[in-house]
Amino acid sequence: MKLRNTIAVLAITLASLTVASAQEALPSWNQGPAKQAIIDFVTKTTTAGSTDFVPPEERIATFDQDGTLWVEHPIYTQVMFCFERVPDLVKAKPELAKVAPFSTVLELLHGDRAAMEKLNMDDLMKILAATSSGMSVETFQSEAKNWLAGAKNPRWKKPYTELTYQPMQEVLNYLRANGFKTYIVTGGGQDFVRVYAGNIYGIPPEQVVGTAGETKYGYDKNGRPFLTKEPKLLLNDNFAGKPEGIHLMIGRRPVAAFGNSTGDQQMLEYTKGGGGARLAMLVLHDDATREFAYGPAQGLPDTKIGTFTQALYDEAQKGGWTVISMKNDWKQIFAFETP
Amino acid sequence: MKLRNTIAVLAITLASLTVASAQEALPSWNQGPAKQAIIDFVTKTTTAGSTDFVPPEERIATFDQDGTLWVEHPIYTQVMFCFERVPDLVKAKPELAKVAPFSTVLELLHGDRAAMEKLNMDDLMKILAATSSGMSVETFQSEAKNWLAGAKNPRWKKPYTELTYQPMQEVLNYLRANGFKTYIVTGGGQDFVRVYAGNIYGIPPEQVVGTAGETKYGYDKNGRPFLTKEPKLLLNDNFAGKPEGIHLMIGRRPVAAFGNSTGDQQMLEYTKGGGGARLAMLVLHDDATREFAYGPAQGLPDTKIGTFTQALYDEAQKGGWTVISMKNDWKQIFAFETP
Repeated sequence: MKLRNTIAVLAITLASLTVASAQEALPSWNQGPAKQAIIDFVTKTTTAGSTDFVPPEERIATFDQDGTLWVEHPIYTQVMFCFERVPDLVKAKPELAKVAPFSTVLELLHGDRAAMEKLNMDDLMKILAATSSGMSVETFQSEAKNWLAGAKNPRWKKPYTELTYQPMQEVLNYLRANGFKTYIVTGGGQDFVRVYAGNIYGIPPEQVVGTAGETKYGYDKNGRPFLTKEPKLLLNDNFAGKPEGIHLMIGRRPVAAFGNSTGDQQMLEYTKGGGGARLAMLVLHDDATREFAYGPAQGLPDTKIGTFTQALYDEAQKGGWTVISMKNDWKQIFAFETP
Repeated sequence: MKLRNTIAVLAITLASLTVASAQEALPSWNQGPAKQAIIDFVTKTTTAGSTDFVPPEERIATFDQDGTLWVEHPIYTQVMFCFERVPDLVKAKPELAKVAPFSTVLELLHGDRAAMEKLNMDDLMKILAATSSGMSVETFQSEAKNWLAGAKNPRWKKPYTELTYQPMQEVLNYLRANGFKTYIVTGGGQDFVRVYAGNIYGIPPEQVVGTAGETKYGYDKNGRPFLTKEPKLLLNDNFAGKPEGIHLMIGRRPVAAFGNSTGDQQMLEYTKGGGGARLAMLVLHDDATREFAYGPAQGLPDTKIGTFTQALYDEAQKGGWTVISMKNDWKQIFAFETP
């Protein structure tokens, strides 16, 4: 068989697969404006001849992680990881046992839940720097991997890595099947998220943009080069830091972006501001039964984690962003549930 | 025809193409240890069942740009771009006309070639910051594009973008055809190189890592968001900054790396230090007739641009890196030449 014939057969096969995938895409989504917005966007940006056609190399889609791709309650997974590293840190440096915020974390780990209230964002950054620096990149990676293999979310008693949202996994797959490059753009630590993003989302390390510290190049005693994680912030990938991080790491303006909190606002604005067909979506946690309900958009409680304000909700309405209601738009939330 | 049959036919077709490409790869290279090192490396890392097999997702190859992928003499292209922006800068801020290093650049542009000797790296960074910040990312991109469309290298009287090395273009293509992801890791400005890397090397912006300044998120008078280039250095992607930049932007250790100067040493060490099959190569400019001869390795003159010291040469011998002799290994240097 000639090469030309093979290609023709392949093209026909692929075309029929694409038609099939449009029909079967997003099975965990209920019919409604959110599902429709995704399908309409993908259809018009990938149909040759469409005025909204986007060339494959420009199909960049960015996703916040905590609260957008997986559960962020009762606390960010990475914060839990850092907290649980504090006892070892205190063993190495006993003087820290009586110094806040480390003493506060010890109280918390001993069951004093109210201690959490004492910690602000500066404290969290201090704990992050102290527990996630001073070791090689490889050591950090293997320790994070080990921790993730054993740690469980207190509500579902399942590994954190199983608590990804099935409907969002379907969006990632659907976009990739249509030639989009999917990125995580997270306020969480880039090095931490890269440890598992390949396994749980199919997103390779080079497509994870996150809050990043400096590293320092050096040599071990055998003269072998390695990088040490330094306690110095290089990129705070939150709020305006998200579009800034996107420019630094990707160098293109996304055509689609997904978030769930005020920390994602600038990323969605930046995406929408590019002109042409754009998709901006926000996940609203309004399902207290199957997951959590918090906001405080639409009168939901403000839990300080993943804050979705009413102002952001109004901004979404005004800017043509689509709000995803977990309660109404998602047939199923986790892969382990029976739909 | 069944899908399974189509896939079988396709697999056979692809297999025969791969065999063909191994035979025909690197036509601008003379037979010799450098060409053989590339072919051996690609063969063993991509042959299923080989002990040196590297899974496709880990096939990361990094390339320095100036002096490795294109000509860097008589001066780095980007430095010329910045110099030619100085008159406009001085028009906007006349007080700079009498202040070094801007006054020195004006002398240089008026034909005083000796003025170049007065400029050190700090001066160049000052000029870079002053001429490449204070505008939106998009404005910078379009100005760089316009300049590149008109500017010519003084020796060949051709656009800089035509002065890429044909043998290295073939290496990029050969690696990509074998599932490698090719990155530029340059001491040059990331935003500058991203403007043309897609067109001239087939390397998209997200695969260009370079020296980067901060950007600042803001809104124009219509409320449309944009990023402004700030005069503040974020990543100095030279020497140890190369492996640090690779970790930040790619998050994996490369398996192949190519450079031509002491600024690439750490990138090559880091690549080689990863264990398993690794390829580290250095381009030696030893062809005064067809390009330039400078070093000062092997007694070549030290021109301060793209310094390849004898110590680096010795390091290469010791570490099993391969030195590419432009004179002996390359049949043809530029695409526009008759081989």
